Amino acid sequence: MKIVDGPTARLRADGEGYYAATLEGVRPGARYVYRFPDGRERPDPASLLQPEGVHGPSEVVDLADIAPRSRGPQHPLQRLVFSEIHLGTYSREGTAGGAARHLRELSEAGYTAVEVMPVAAFPGARNWGYDGVDLFAAHAAYGGPAGLARLVEAAHARGLSAFLDVVYNHFGPEGNYLGEFGPYLTSRHRTPWGDAVNYDGPDSGPVRRFVIENALRWVASAGGGFDGLRLDAVHGIVDDSPVHLLRELNDAVQREARETGRAIHVIAESDLNEARLVEPPERGGYGLSAAWADDFHHALHVALTGESSGYYEDFAPPAIEPLDALVSALRSGWHYGGAYSKHRGRKHGTPGAHLSGRRFVVAAQNHDQIGNRARGERLAALTSPGGLRVAAALTALSPALPLFFQGEEWAATEPFQYFVSHGDPALVEAVRKGRREELKAFSWAGEVPDPQDEQTFLRSKVDRANRDTPAGRAGFLWHRDLLALRREHPALQDDRRDALEARRQGPALVLRRWSAGKEIAVVALFSEEEREVELPPGRWRAVLDSGAEPYAVPGARPARVESGTARLCGRHAVVLERTA
Amino acid sequence: MKIVDGPTARLRADGEGYYAATLEGVRPGARYVYRFPDGRERPDPASLLQPEGVHGPSEVVDLADIAPRSRGPQHPLQRLVFSEIHLGTYSREGTAGGAARHLRELSEAGYTAVEVMPVAAFPGARNWGYDGVDLFAAHAAYGGPAGLARLVEAAHARGLSAFLDVVYNHFGPEGNYLGEFGPYLTSRHRTPWGDAVNYDGPDSGPVRRFVIENALRWVASAGGGFDGLRLDAVHGIVDDSPVHLLRELNDAVQREARETGRAIHVIAESDLNEARLVEPPERGGYGLSAAWADDFHHALHVALTGESSGYYEDFAPPAIEPLDALVSALRSGWHYGGAYSKHRGRKHGTPGAHLSGRRFVVAAQNHDQIGNRARGERLAALTSPGGLRVAAALTALSPALPLFFQGEEWAATEPFQYFVSHGDPALVEAVRKGRREELKAFSWAGEVPDPQDEQTFLRSKVDRANRDTPAGRAGFLWHRDLLALRREHPALQDDRRDALEARRQGPALVLRRWSAGKEIAVVALFSEEEREVELPPGRWRAVLDSGAEPYAVPGARPARVESGTARLCGRHAVVLERTA
Repeated sequence: MKIVDGPTARLRADGEGYYAATLEGVRPGARYVYRFPDGRERPDPASLLQPEGVHGPSEVVDLADIAPRSRGPQHPLQRLVFSEIHLGTYSREGTAGGAARHLRELSEAGYTAVEVMPVAAFPGARNWGYDGVDLFAAHAAYGGPAGLARLVEAAHARGLSAFLDVVYNHFGPEGNYLGEFGPYLTSRHRTPWGDAVNYDGPDSGPVRRFVIENALRWVASAGGGFDGLRLDAVHGIVDDSPVHLLRELNDAVQREARETGRAIHVIAESDLNEARLVEPPERGGYGLSAAWADDFHHALHVALTGESSGYYEDFAPPAIEPLDALVSALRSGWHYGGAYSKHRGRKHGTPGAHLSGRRFVVAAQNHDQIGNRARGERLAALTSPGGLRVAAALTALSPALPLFFQGEEWAATEPFQYFVSHGDPALVEAVRKGRREELKAFSWAGEVPDPQDEQTFLRSKVDRANRDTPAGRAGFLWHRDLLALRREHPALQDDRRDALEARRQGPALVLRRWSAGKEIAVVALFSEEEREVELPPGRWRAVLDSGAEPYAVPGARPARVESGTARLCGRHAVVLERTA
Repeated sequence: MKIVDGPTARLRADGEGYYAATLEGVRPGARYVYRFPDGRERPDPASLLQPEGVHGPSEVVDLADIAPRSRGPQHPLQRLVFSEIHLGTYSREGTAGGAARHLRELSEAGYTAVEVMPVAAFPGARNWGYDGVDLFAAHAAYGGPAGLARLVEAAHARGLSAFLDVVYNHFGPEGNYLGEFGPYLTSRHRTPWGDAVNYDGPDSGPVRRFVIENALRWVASAGGGFDGLRLDAVHGIVDDSPVHLLRELNDAVQREARETGRAIHVIAESDLNEARLVEPPERGGYGLSAAWADDFHHALHVALTGESSGYYEDFAPPAIEPLDALVSALRSGWHYGGAYSKHRGRKHGTPGAHLSGRRFVVAAQNHDQIGNRARGERLAALTSPGGLRVAAALTALSPALPLFFQGEEWAATEPFQYFVSHGDPALVEAVRKGRREELKAFSWAGEVPDPQDEQTFLRSKVDRANRDTPAGRAGFLWHRDLLALRREHPALQDDRRDALEARRQGPALVLRRWSAGKEIAVVALFSEEEREVELPPGRWRAVLDSGAEPYAVPGARPARVESGTARLCGRHAVVLERTA
């Protein structure tokens, strides 16, 4: 280890796979590198700050000095409603501090949690965050670890739980020196990013520890102070060893939670529809709090847009009517619980109906579903305002935990496009080419914006001017009132599967939820025509109607709720409460 | 499909991944090939007989004509004691019929099950069986499907359950045309044999079905009639899909068992010490009947031989005293239940102590542990006759299911060496080289016999002349009397972990098992010196003593059992029963 313009210390093996040295008199702010016997100098793979980027020296940081002084609001799991934000595009400044200024808006919109896309240091100035290479370092341009800690404090001050998106399925393609320090990768498994992270091969013990320590760095009270983690694409974490990394990681996080008397949630993004992720260890599960459940999105998206390319083919005829898939996603957490998936060429998923709603995170939009389109269009560009109301209602009133993408609460229209700012020209060209290739399969692809171009990034910035247009205000009120109802109505707080029914009636869907003698029915019409929908037995009154003022979209009018039926006109959602 | 010297039929896709055609008037004995559009002719991947070898045409067989007409003896799982045999070397003839002539010996020795090493058609005349390529075809030189069916009938007639070893983790390297028929392999995972079988990638559905149908072919009443399967090295069956192949396979086999009112057991060989294999599906397990547990072997082997190279390092100082590892294997099914393994460079295994003894299969010797040595020496060549008695006693009286390798009951001394008879010269050279490389790590390696040389095979044949030597007779009686005691004593039929205790006393081990007021203690001395071993409280009498006639080995004398102690001299095992 070499302090820049300072002393050098020889690292010694600790016998458990790591090397350590102690240097006296080094203060926060000092910069250092590791020097290999052959003269190579590399940043610390566990660096907390890379002030000059991923190729430069690391900076000494005393986390204890800057750890958030606040405690999260300790929302129960089933109370979480997420706003997913990307620090580079969420504010004009593109920093943690910039985002912190807007957290009051999230609280006002009814969110209880802010979920920050990955912050691990990445090459260049612009990146979604999934190319991070220094897993312990908060990206310097976002404000580094101190800026991030202030963001967490600001969230807590607004009553928001703070979640961080972390990536343990691969390392970024540039500035990733981990392979020079140890067997962090293995050729035993291949992932979409190449060789898998070595979680089960020889010497995987210290690799597992590295990742688990990383999770703890972000959630520890004396560390990042986050209230939860979102683990990116855990289907890319391949681990055939007897105790799966995810279970070991969750156990370590829950130990920290117990010891500090906090609730800390580990939530996995997975495209495998795997109950194991959230089942308790005594049933062979990993015990995570919840998992992303994409079937809800896909079915809803196909029902609203008619798209059927790529993975959407599994949610469109001839495979299935999208509303039938949406019904089973509402009932069972996901639609594919073991059925054959044409897109995958194999059976897909395990049954999920035994799990309560809080075990799933659903979204009508998120960074991936928007940004993985060639031009990154939001749903606002693909469906009518009425369709947006339907999407918001079903997401907000689902038994699962709802997640919305930054600006979705006011029906933001700016795209979220795929952008990078790599330094290596060959890599830049490979990313451009890969992106074009990848999107060939999608019929809506068209021209693909250049990921390296700064304009692609700038186009993706949240534009708060749209919040104050009539469309933005109406969308915001609908969103806010839906979340208020979710928060306050007893029928919407009961997430058991036997407190729910969902049925399709032609182009309409009726979702019923009940508890303690109270009942809510959401009637959503996907057709642009007028339809009469049969209501469940009993007497009903509308409590929220996307056709009514102040949510009204052009041409909409309120539903006519009569004895036994509701008459809706055009894409439209009505929330009814049983009165008798 | 083309019948040799006969008509041709066009195969049609059935829409589920397979192709089929019907040809009238074709009789058993007809030969056929599949012809590809480019003119290639290939045997049927689901062929039942390859009369001219793995490269030649397939033969039409009517399994119903030849299926065993007998039903197995339906031994309860905990009553199984296996003799593992290899058809090529178990009899002079080297066929299923030859083996059938010797099954009475197995029954007399106290076995309740014969486990046949793999019979799937392989290239050439000599092979252990793990290079099989036609998974449905019983090797022609062993007697084909008809010969195998007669062997199963002969086993049943002798009161033996018939088990078959099947290989689903890879296909053999020569004559394997499966890849020309479909995506049977995937580069998503790598195994020691190269690309993994495609159990979880696109179009894996028909691959999974192929393997599951294969399992059913061997166990079905109208098929092979076997009473159980031993799945080879399931740690090489990599399946990240939500429902693991092993669970699906076991479910299918158990359906066959229910429908025909039989007990059919699926037992996995695994080196992962994974409880999941045998835990019930409602606890996240695969529900298999039992799994091989190698730690027992390794600890016992190191305790008897002092070897500590290769994987034995995990069972030798400084990692651990081998007898301590043996104690924990007896108590918990395996020693490594999550502890760090130096050999693997990572933590190894899951806890096993909650599982009853019948969930594990243990051995002091098996084809792998013998044959994977450079010169294939049996334990008889590596330890004293007293050591062999100790090994037999601990294996036979373990709460787990014991397995012995052919001839072990008379302490056979002939080696079991690694042999092949590939046709491809480049492959032959690669195997020779690979074998030399693989064995470099083992200090006892020495010169490696040529696997392709017929002499290597001939040296490995069972030599029944050794059965009638004084050493053979004494060994046989010890073995037979141990198994009789296991069968008849109530304390040895209770395989619950809380009906057992194991302790080390210096170089001795005391295993206690009790039930219904009866108790057995096995005292095993691993030192060649005289030692006094403290007995558990109570009064004890010897019921079996390897130092007594007729088991006596040169220089041995019976143990002196006195108040509270037993005095043993040299490697030696005494089985005591509590009298008060």
